[in-house]
Amino acid sequence: MVNLERSFQAPKGTRDFYPTDLALRRRIEQAWRSASIDFGFDEIEGPTFEHLELYTAKSGDGIVSELFSFRRAGGENDYALRPEFTPTLARMVAAKAGGLPTPVKWFAMPNMFRAERPQRGRLREFGQWNIDLLGLEGAAIDVEVIGVAILALERLGLTARDVQVRVSHRVVISRVLAALGVPAEKASDAMTLLDRRDKLELAEFQRRAEALGLSVEAVQRFDAVARATQPLSEPLDALAKSIGVDAEAFSALDELRVAAASAGILEWCTVDVGIVRGLAYYTGTVFEIHEISGAERAIAGGGRYDGLVELFGGPKMPACGFGMGDVVLANVLNDRGLLPKDPATCLPQPDAYVISAGGDADAHVAPLVRQMRAAQLHTRTSYKVTRNVGKLLSDAAKARARFAVILGAEIAEGRVALKDLATGEQRLIAIDEVIEACRRQSSGS
Amino acid sequence: MVNLERSFQAPKGTRDFYPTDLALRRRIEQAWRSASIDFGFDEIEGPTFEHLELYTAKSGDGIVSELFSFRRAGGENDYALRPEFTPTLARMVAAKAGGLPTPVKWFAMPNMFRAERPQRGRLREFGQWNIDLLGLEGAAIDVEVIGVAILALERLGLTARDVQVRVSHRVVISRVLAALGVPAEKASDAMTLLDRRDKLELAEFQRRAEALGLSVEAVQRFDAVARATQPLSEPLDALAKSIGVDAEAFSALDELRVAAASAGILEWCTVDVGIVRGLAYYTGTVFEIHEISGAERAIAGGGRYDGLVELFGGPKMPACGFGMGDVVLANVLNDRGLLPKDPATCLPQPDAYVISAGGDADAHVAPLVRQMRAAQLHTRTSYKVTRNVGKLLSDAAKARARFAVILGAEIAEGRVALKDLATGEQRLIAIDEVIEACRRQSSGS
Repeated sequence: MVNLERSFQAPKGTRDFYPTDLALRRRIEQAWRSASIDFGFDEIEGPTFEHLELYTAKSGDGIVSELFSFRRAGGENDYALRPEFTPTLARMVAAKAGGLPTPVKWFAMPNMFRAERPQRGRLREFGQWNIDLLGLEGAAIDVEVIGVAILALERLGLTARDVQVRVSHRVVISRVLAALGVPAEKASDAMTLLDRRDKLELAEFQRRAEALGLSVEAVQRFDAVARATQPLSEPLDALAKSIGVDAEAFSALDELRVAAASAGILEWCTVDVGIVRGLAYYTGTVFEIHEISGAERAIAGGGRYDGLVELFGGPKMPACGFGMGDVVLANVLNDRGLLPKDPATCLPQPDAYVISAGGDADAHVAPLVRQMRAAQLHTRTSYKVTRNVGKLLSDAAKARARFAVILGAEIAEGRVALKDLATGEQRLIAIDEVIEACRRQSSGS
Repeated sequence: MVNLERSFQAPKGTRDFYPTDLALRRRIEQAWRSASIDFGFDEIEGPTFEHLELYTAKSGDGIVSELFSFRRAGGENDYALRPEFTPTLARMVAAKAGGLPTPVKWFAMPNMFRAERPQRGRLREFGQWNIDLLGLEGAAIDVEVIGVAILALERLGLTARDVQVRVSHRVVISRVLAALGVPAEKASDAMTLLDRRDKLELAEFQRRAEALGLSVEAVQRFDAVARATQPLSEPLDALAKSIGVDAEAFSALDELRVAAASAGILEWCTVDVGIVRGLAYYTGTVFEIHEISGAERAIAGGGRYDGLVELFGGPKMPACGFGMGDVVLANVLNDRGLLPKDPATCLPQPDAYVISAGGDADAHVAPLVRQMRAAQLHTRTSYKVTRNVGKLLSDAAKARARFAVILGAEIAEGRVALKDLATGEQRLIAIDEVIEACRRQSSGS
């Protein structure tokens, strides 16, 4: 039986964006887009759904149970709504490999879909900014990728005191695990355990660490690794010593420090060896961006995945990138008071509001409005029957228009009143001058 | 068995947008967005998928077989990728009814999904601009809705000689059908037949018209109705006479003519009584925008649907709107030579390209680039090992940068060379002046 009540609501975990909701989201997207472009990334986009095999054949198992999958009635192919963008990106690079410039610098802002239980910071449909830089290796490239994320966050009002980029490195983690005595065949289990450290009770964490074959003493050092953080700006010798590995094991992070200092983003970065990222395809630098208290989910996550394009049939091609979702980011901005108190101020501001005082002026409204809009002026007018200019001026102010254009008796001489709604100043001008007057003064403000 | 070959391609009927592809699409979207805003419409967005019942319970049957539907593994709800935006819009209006200003003026630019056979102008995933103006009746409102479509098309370079808005009116069609002798209970069948006139052979069309109970003579007049078109600017008396109805039957289109003349869009409009629109919910004005030869599918379609919001549990609320897809529009623009010959010119132009001549200058590149990007300058630099300034300048030109900033030996005195890549003019400036120099000169060009 049809459930009309339910069909009249957005599906669980999805959102209706009314104008002020969408204006806030567009503000976030504008920060993403402008940072991407200023860094020289070009925008791409792919299909909203892909062949199911694109995800099942290559991704880590974590993603598979979270897919919305389907097939067309009578069709033979299984599809899935995209849960992440990287497989699409790798497929697109592989399809054109050889024909693309080096490096490939791409960004995308697709919607993503996960069939999981909705909760704070996690929805079934969300927007995700993706940055990928392919074809080059090295700490400077990793830092460029991190840098574009930081620029976008800066433009939204966040500082290094609000958020930190927690960096680690797969090679560092491997060397640390080896130094602790984790056997090579258990390295993957150990990384999974590191990844879950914040979700497990201490006792449970230690029990699982022992199951990796570690001695009691090594479990304690493993625990220290899992929790250890320090500013990237500080040398890592003391950290190395405290967990009992050779300082040289951290050399990859030393290179990252030098590159981050050169790019001016050192203060944004924290070493957090326990960051491993769940997905199987990372090979070098890994990072997550967190609100500084650590109370929220990650704002962004990414790293280096040098083998991925090859997995999708392309050439061997180093790559580094990240994804940043809109949901956690909006929560963090909201908690820090960085969203406008009156979201209406995010809506586009009308250049002019055209008012008729009645009589012969009425016939001039539609043609003038048409000309103004054709001249790229955001122009509003009233749909009310009233010709009470005072009331209509109040509507113009409510609409946040910069100017009111008032058509009254002076229209007989081809003149109209132009009122600056910020200053209250009003003057008569020729109707032919309205467009220039609104344009010049609005671009000058 | 996993088909990796297939999974490495975009699903049939969907598109990969590489940077220049997406730049062209963004150009179309920018015309849609700017026209919407200049007309005072606010942007909204809804979920990419909805409860299946939202479509099956209310839409015409035409849409149902074209849905991609699915449910979450272990879930109980059926969902469908949205095939059109109007049900989402009506749901959103109904949910807030009473709390919304009058009129409601909304636009959206969602992706839509139809599980049909891909062909020219018709894909399985496409972008669609939606305009809706709710809460007001009258020809002037219908003309405002048509006007925003025209403004967007004008901004893309189209004229009234390229495309025409073919208008009709459900009340006019009903009166014409009644005058022809179509019984009331067959009016719906007659409209369906009118809608299919271009897809049927003449003999088949006439056979079906006879099946409506029409006399041989009435069938001929019905055929004349189906094919009759004329500029909206011309009085409809002659048309009325030729199909044997009272001229008063066309009064709704006479009102539309007056409003279109007042809004300055009369030359864009053609009366085409045979336009009915397939969807069941239209109640008044109906229109389609076509490339003038009629060879392509409709660029846009819409009209008045005064009963729809009420159907979705909202208040009684008049409404008028349209949808315009990106696929047919892009084909028309392409055929008319209105897309840039070199799509790369649609990509954002770099403000500056920073070059090091080597030596001490190298260390200054990363900090300068960081500062320039932070100052909202689109800044690129080279990833090459070479310090051959000539080659790097050639790369800067290839990247279409406005300025090259060359860091050489003068960096010792805090100075760099700024080269205008359009004029070739080069001068030494203080490194602290680079940002202002690129900004001032780039905004002045």
